[in-house]
Amino acid sequence: MADTGWPGCARSLKGVILDMFGVLYEGGEGDGVAIPGSIEAVKKLKESDLQLRFCTNETQAAREAFVAKLHRLGFDMSVSEVFPPAPAAVAVLKERGLRPHLLVYDALLPEFDGVDKNNPNCVVIGDAAEKFSYQNLNEAFRVLIDLEKPVLFSLGQGRYYNDPDGLKLDVGVYMKALEYACDLKAEVIGKPSSTFFQSVLNDMGLQPHEVLMIGDDLVNDVGGAQHCGMKGVQVRTGKFRPSDERHPTVTADGYVDDLAQAVDMILSQRR
Amino acid sequence: MADTGWPGCARSLKGVILDMFGVLYEGGEGDGVAIPGSIEAVKKLKESDLQLRFCTNETQAAREAFVAKLHRLGFDMSVSEVFPPAPAAVAVLKERGLRPHLLVYDALLPEFDGVDKNNPNCVVIGDAAEKFSYQNLNEAFRVLIDLEKPVLFSLGQGRYYNDPDGLKLDVGVYMKALEYACDLKAEVIGKPSSTFFQSVLNDMGLQPHEVLMIGDDLVNDVGGAQHCGMKGVQVRTGKFRPSDERHPTVTADGYVDDLAQAVDMILSQRR
Repeated sequence: MADTGWPGCARSLKGVILDMFGVLYEGGEGDGVAIPGSIEAVKKLKESDLQLRFCTNETQAAREAFVAKLHRLGFDMSVSEVFPPAPAAVAVLKERGLRPHLLVYDALLPEFDGVDKNNPNCVVIGDAAEKFSYQNLNEAFRVLIDLEKPVLFSLGQGRYYNDPDGLKLDVGVYMKALEYACDLKAEVIGKPSSTFFQSVLNDMGLQPHEVLMIGDDLVNDVGGAQHCGMKGVQVRTGKFRPSDERHPTVTADGYVDDLAQAVDMILSQRR
Repeated sequence: MADTGWPGCARSLKGVILDMFGVLYEGGEGDGVAIPGSIEAVKKLKESDLQLRFCTNETQAAREAFVAKLHRLGFDMSVSEVFPPAPAAVAVLKERGLRPHLLVYDALLPEFDGVDKNNPNCVVIGDAAEKFSYQNLNEAFRVLIDLEKPVLFSLGQGRYYNDPDGLKLDVGVYMKALEYACDLKAEVIGKPSSTFFQSVLNDMGLQPHEVLMIGDDLVNDVGGAQHCGMKGVQVRTGKFRPSDERHPTVTADGYVDDLAQAVDMILSQRR
């Protein structure tokens, strides 16, 4: 009988999905810093027979610039292996013929270059930090309230994140603000949306039970992956807090100190 | 048998509470403009045997400055007859020994002059318009998230209001944002809170069934008053929309074109 628990499940895996911020690297001056052992861990996964993808809620830069930063930190990955919310949003907008009003970081705007933004009939918000001024939020609100069927997309639904300066409000907070103002429910693009995880699985050509997600965010990484039928393991780096191991609704399939330990456990099971 | 419906109920009334913005006056350049007939209607109520109070969610200025504006528009009222949320909040803060971090209009700050604001252990937000910057909201968030038992007071819970410039986001939107960020429920001070209406009834020395509320906001004025045991009549001025007369959960005891019509109906019942 196959062991379906962690780490025994590693024997039957065909692919691994990694969260990025808090798993591969963390904040700091400039590009931030690689978490010890994570560069080597990615290298080992790439040399194994496992398929590897990166799944992030990163919306502070367009994909090319973002991957270039990871290269500078020492990671080996290609743009096509990285799945952030913005390209997924562009696919949804094109499929549904929607023209967005955008409230996102300026550096993310290039992702939307090929999208018609005239006479908007929906709003897309991503983390925008200082761009979340009263005026900009009011402008997004007025676009929505004037629509017969207002549609709001939110690139993630995070509450806050840790910055070298201290805690900072994330996009989910402004999503809730606009939901209340317009009496609507936003469509979340990014983790923990099943549609988003499924698009990564489709790209791998694998079934959920063949894939393991490794992340530092219990609800969005682990819970989201499990909801989709994958296994989910939480690292004790990044935004991990000890109370996560007693969370009322989400229990990870396994907990590891960091990515390096997770990868060593996976690969030793497969030998 | 006493007629308990509108306008028959007017015969047994002992007091009337009036909403202000949208009932007495509306927006416009400078102080705004009195709604036709409303100055005379207030005068008639004052000359009657009915007690009169004004109950508003106004938080853009301290009470003295606000009442001075109403005087300039031609209304006869004293500061002690006007009940806005800020003085009610001050009473709650003092009663519970709380020291607020304030995110409100600068012009409202004098209301909190006598309150200790050092080393804050709660947050009070009111409509703050342009002061709702990312930085200011983040600052309020950090105060809350650092508290063992975070307490958030919101002066009203409006979604948006009509300004000569167009629709503008109101305080409720930022209340929801902070509620989500900190995973808490705000305490609303102002209409439709029963505590707030009750403080006005206490000041009048009357029972709820002896008092009628007249407002333009179906949920916050009419619904809030009814929840408290009062009758509630909606005027078809201010933010009134025809769909209010088919609202799924709140039905006014009566609808009138404007305050002038309401007062004439009340007084003619009592002759």
